[in-house]
Amino acid sequence: MQPLRVGLIGLGTVGSGVMRLLTEHADRMSHRAGRPVEVVRVAVRDLSRRRSIDVPSTLLTDDPLSIATDSRIDVVIELIGGLRPAREIILTALESGKHVVTANKALLCEEGPVIFQAARRAQRCVAFEAAVAGGIPVIHVLGQAMAGNQITVIEAILNGTSNFILTEMLQRGESYADAVRNAQSLGLAEADPTLDVDGTDASQKLCLLAQLAFGTRVTPNQFSRQGIDTLDLTDLQYARELGYAVKLLATARLGDGQLEMHTQPTLIRRSRPIAQVDGAFNMVALTGDAVGPTWYSGQGAGQMPTASAVVSDLIDVAIGRAQLTFEHLDLWEQRPKIPIRPAEDSYRRYYLRFPVEDRPHVIADITDILGRHSISLASVIQHEAPEVEEAQADHFPLVPLVIMTHRTREGHLRAAAAELNQLPTVGKPWICMPVSD
Amino acid sequence: MQPLRVGLIGLGTVGSGVMRLLTEHADRMSHRAGRPVEVVRVAVRDLSRRRSIDVPSTLLTDDPLSIATDSRIDVVIELIGGLRPAREIILTALESGKHVVTANKALLCEEGPVIFQAARRAQRCVAFEAAVAGGIPVIHVLGQAMAGNQITVIEAILNGTSNFILTEMLQRGESYADAVRNAQSLGLAEADPTLDVDGTDASQKLCLLAQLAFGTRVTPNQFSRQGIDTLDLTDLQYARELGYAVKLLATARLGDGQLEMHTQPTLIRRSRPIAQVDGAFNMVALTGDAVGPTWYSGQGAGQMPTASAVVSDLIDVAIGRAQLTFEHLDLWEQRPKIPIRPAEDSYRRYYLRFPVEDRPHVIADITDILGRHSISLASVIQHEAPEVEEAQADHFPLVPLVIMTHRTREGHLRAAAAELNQLPTVGKPWICMPVSD
Repeated sequence: MQPLRVGLIGLGTVGSGVMRLLTEHADRMSHRAGRPVEVVRVAVRDLSRRRSIDVPSTLLTDDPLSIATDSRIDVVIELIGGLRPAREIILTALESGKHVVTANKALLCEEGPVIFQAARRAQRCVAFEAAVAGGIPVIHVLGQAMAGNQITVIEAILNGTSNFILTEMLQRGESYADAVRNAQSLGLAEADPTLDVDGTDASQKLCLLAQLAFGTRVTPNQFSRQGIDTLDLTDLQYARELGYAVKLLATARLGDGQLEMHTQPTLIRRSRPIAQVDGAFNMVALTGDAVGPTWYSGQGAGQMPTASAVVSDLIDVAIGRAQLTFEHLDLWEQRPKIPIRPAEDSYRRYYLRFPVEDRPHVIADITDILGRHSISLASVIQHEAPEVEEAQADHFPLVPLVIMTHRTREGHLRAAAAELNQLPTVGKPWICMPVSD
Repeated sequence: MQPLRVGLIGLGTVGSGVMRLLTEHADRMSHRAGRPVEVVRVAVRDLSRRRSIDVPSTLLTDDPLSIATDSRIDVVIELIGGLRPAREIILTALESGKHVVTANKALLCEEGPVIFQAARRAQRCVAFEAAVAGGIPVIHVLGQAMAGNQITVIEAILNGTSNFILTEMLQRGESYADAVRNAQSLGLAEADPTLDVDGTDASQKLCLLAQLAFGTRVTPNQFSRQGIDTLDLTDLQYARELGYAVKLLATARLGDGQLEMHTQPTLIRRSRPIAQVDGAFNMVALTGDAVGPTWYSGQGAGQMPTASAVVSDLIDVAIGRAQLTFEHLDLWEQRPKIPIRPAEDSYRRYYLRFPVEDRPHVIADITDILGRHSISLASVIQHEAPEVEEAQADHFPLVPLVIMTHRTREGHLRAAAAELNQLPTVGKPWICMPVSD
């Protein structure tokens, strides 16, 4: 049978992993794909660079567009990431009649409609299992296995770097800064980890999942996003004391005809599976109206987990399955757009930590403000502080006051926050994290 | 576009759930399937019986074979279970050119080759996502998402009834018998729960997963199977004390060119995700050589989770994806058969509980026998028992002695067991469970 001829663009960590799978396990691939899978060309940035993997120099080029237009090629695998030149490469490949397999979540999140429409015009497909949680086949699950369901809730840990850092902080009692350095030395965080730790990466992935689950295009600027870069070890420890774990949680929830979305460090009850996902692992918890709650976990990134996702897409293309799936995915806005719920209207419990002066009436001031904004308290923690003789005290030491609220509208909380910021006895910054029950 | 015309055989719990999804959500189905999905006939055992769901009497028949041969029908959904008459119905449907969707694990496990070959001859497909862990799309995952991998380990909780009973026993301190009655009253166990609690159901499902993962047909009589029906609350409590949970674990592990398989109550370290799956939920943990460890969890049975799996298969058939997938699944013994490792050769740690007479030298006798069979001990627990004046003691009360061994060959353990059974100071039965680390 005709081999599937592949052009690979990008021979970095994931690209080399894909090469390894396709070459070292060629028999497995042709068995699973029903035909040989041949890499006929590979685009790299620097031809002279030495590499971890041997690729015949005859295959190499430093001109990716020449692969996108190469008439011998059936599928282009784009693994360079970023918006440019990936966008042109993918559009050119599609217009040249090639299918595309990509791990480029940023591009699909920012310019998905352009790319998906171009694929449709060219009657080709874009497969992107590797773009979200490499080791978890969540694109397959949403597009196929859950097709009988209306998804009602997505709760996911989508950034392995952040989850690793949070796990390290708590387990080793490390500061955020030390945990980041540690992650970098282990190759689990980039030199500049900003997009991972500030929630951008997780939010882009959430948008792709929401598109598939709800048939509605959402972009990260439409919902609240906080990262883990403002978190203090103290808060992870208080959360544990209260029976919760803190995770960078990406959430999309369908209710009252609105879509509530946010990416935030969130307290999750320790007994829940998603609270127990540690280190560089990801988890996606999906609730469907028929199947009920389900969850899927695996490594979120890394060379071989991501390569595994790329290769499964490649096999789907070889078999012709990816083409059928792409045609039926909810990428076409056929359904009425679902409005995003205003952040003020989200209705949750909250964890609050105030550095307060250890003097009379401070708790009363804070709880009075919360009460006037109809925020009621579920629990309060203030550990005993060293005694200070009021008489001699020129200043009062700051001690942490931790409050768990009952469910309240975020709007109320914001109004209360404005007043709390005026209290002279409350130090800055004070911390606020939502709770997922 | 041409509607997909469906014949439904069996209108029990799951059948009614499928009807509900297809009728109450007809728009969703035709959107996802790309064409209308129409149930044109339904076979029931008793036409006169009142039902939880309204089906036009014109659709009903009590002759399932007439559906299998009905020229208007594209797909037959078989939901009556059991070997006969399901076998004839499915074979007839295939020979009559219909695709088949089924949840019948027993039939596929016992007679898979006959059915799969018949489908191949007729160029039709058999889709069976609902046959294993309804709420978990493990057939999709093995057949598609993990296609780039060689699966090396399957560890799974595949019987929701057993898992519910084990959870109840430990959480409520209930006896096995009470927990079974409780499960029955909640509709989570059959009137005769034998096939669920003795490990048969889980073993049949494991065989289907092993077929897909390893391309090798295995039947339950080829490997060890123990159920939870011999378990005592005491053992669940000791396991918890030692930091483990006891689960009915179905395992298939590839190593040294052999396949190790067994279904047994197994101690699993509490920190592992599969140890934390409680109640009627299932979990399938799959390790692939590229993707590494992954796990999937959801409800194992029940009306709507299973119906959700049936409907996703139906949508796959409507789109044409199920046909492509079926063609490429490892159901054809193309690969050399992998031999099953003899039980004696499996190499694991074990939990042992002996009811022993509380008198001198008993522990010495037992550990001496274990030692002579080169079984070394990791830990021993004997809680203090009430003092007995040796002089006045006409008989000695039996007290539990719990031993955790280091890794050993099961062959050694069996040889030791023969001698242990001869010890007059050891009561019967004494308990032995493997440990999964």
